[in-house]
Amino acid sequence: MRILLVVSYDGTNYCGWQKQNNCITIQGEVEKAISEVLKEDVEIIGASRTDSGVHANGNLAIFDTDSSIPADRWSKVLNQILPDDIVIQESKEVADEFNPRYMKFSKTYEYKILNRSYPLPTYNKSAYYVYGNLNVDAMKLAANALVGEHDFIAFAGAGSQVKTTVRTIFSIDIIEEKLDPTTLGDSDDLLKTGRLIKIRVRGDGFLYNMVRIIAGTLVDVGMGRIKPEDIKGIIESKDRTKAGKTAPAHGLTLLEIEI
Amino acid sequence: MRILLVVSYDGTNYCGWQKQNNCITIQGEVEKAISEVLKEDVEIIGASRTDSGVHANGNLAIFDTDSSIPADRWSKVLNQILPDDIVIQESKEVADEFNPRYMKFSKTYEYKILNRSYPLPTYNKSAYYVYGNLNVDAMKLAANALVGEHDFIAFAGAGSQVKTTVRTIFSIDIIEEKLDPTTLGDSDDLLKTGRLIKIRVRGDGFLYNMVRIIAGTLVDVGMGRIKPEDIKGIIESKDRTKAGKTAPAHGLTLLEIEI
Repeated sequence: MRILLVVSYDGTNYCGWQKQNNCITIQGEVEKAISEVLKEDVEIIGASRTDSGVHANGNLAIFDTDSSIPADRWSKVLNQILPDDIVIQESKEVADEFNPRYMKFSKTYEYKILNRSYPLPTYNKSAYYVYGNLNVDAMKLAANALVGEHDFIAFAGAGSQVKTTVRTIFSIDIIEEKLDPTTLGDSDDLLKTGRLIKIRVRGDGFLYNMVRIIAGTLVDVGMGRIKPEDIKGIIESKDRTKAGKTAPAHGLTLLEIEI
Repeated sequence: MRILLVVSYDGTNYCGWQKQNNCITIQGEVEKAISEVLKEDVEIIGASRTDSGVHANGNLAIFDTDSSIPADRWSKVLNQILPDDIVIQESKEVADEFNPRYMKFSKTYEYKILNRSYPLPTYNKSAYYVYGNLNVDAMKLAANALVGEHDFIAFAGAGSQVKTTVRTIFSIDIIEEKLDPTTLGDSDDLLKTGRLIKIRVRGDGFLYNMVRIIAGTLVDVGMGRIKPEDIKGIIESKDRTKAGKTAPAHGLTLLEIEI
């Protein structure tokens, strides 16, 4: 029987998803928990090998077992063993052919930016702090230019081995949330109060570091270092150096994978 | 010259505001940073002695100095020394009589509750996880009964020494934020997708643990263990055992103190 797990985690204290020898990973912890239940070594296959520091609300993973534990019980069983910062949201049986690594799903990532005069410590682990007033309208224009089917090799980190670098982005929504003032008036000063800017990207798959490079590029647009109308040319250049920097991992959350 | 600091922090790794001998505190770290600049011991006085694990966006503190550093430069100077999870949002000169401990300010606290079938790890340090469908309408009714000037001794933790236990709550707003689905459909299942419930309390001052006891009581109301119409009697009973439990510290943030 093949079991599908919906895995959520705070990635702060992990070396990413993929198992490593000398570092604690999400895959490693989930495998250890399943193995503890089954008293045998078990390997899981994840849909998204998120980087060190990246969070997830709904990553997916599968494993095979002959155990008599009902499929929908696995979430509760594993949550009793797993550390607090990894929670299985759901478990269910899927067909034996179901392999999250080789199937095309629609994935939604969210990249969070804290934009204000000073950082707010409660956002330190979940949002990229950017000083300087970001032009969100320009960022929205640039985001629109990224939507669609493109060769995104200019937005891919080095070191990924993929057959094709063509991907389709279905949508990029940029959501601006005003924060509460901390004090001392001056609430007309936008930067002092600050904003949380959420970049929500939905697509049929993403290259290595692609969402973080998109976020870094949109920050450059927001700061006026790249113009929205330059995005088309950056895609067509197929030149990684033309796009923006890779934004830090801790701002990124894998929200959902639709199966 | 008396300097006022607006202090923000993630309280996760601290034993609260107030200085202690064998535990790292916010007051201790801020005093250490100021002393490092001035090369002499300095004591600060805080407006709100938040508990271990409680966060703040805008706590206030003052200190006196003859230094030639301009008042508004202190925030930048101290942020270069302080750890990442403490940030001075602003600094300015105030009158020598300004003492945040003995002045009456309007303070706003926010208590966050994550209400869904399973915890979401990215909220572990900032929201109290409650399983079971909370009745938010009942919570709002109960909150209304708490607003106003009352003797809140039934909502005070043991161990506080105050002249009077009468306080005025100006408003309690309960804000419900729908979360994003993690996956696997069933988004009609409210508990599976979940909600973030924010209880925002504004008042002229709060007794020890008062906001956390209010939050715990409102959770009891949401779960049907206390009826909204019982709140009046609980206040009048002046009996701490009639109110709900003290909700955990990590759900609480001091948002703002208006001077």
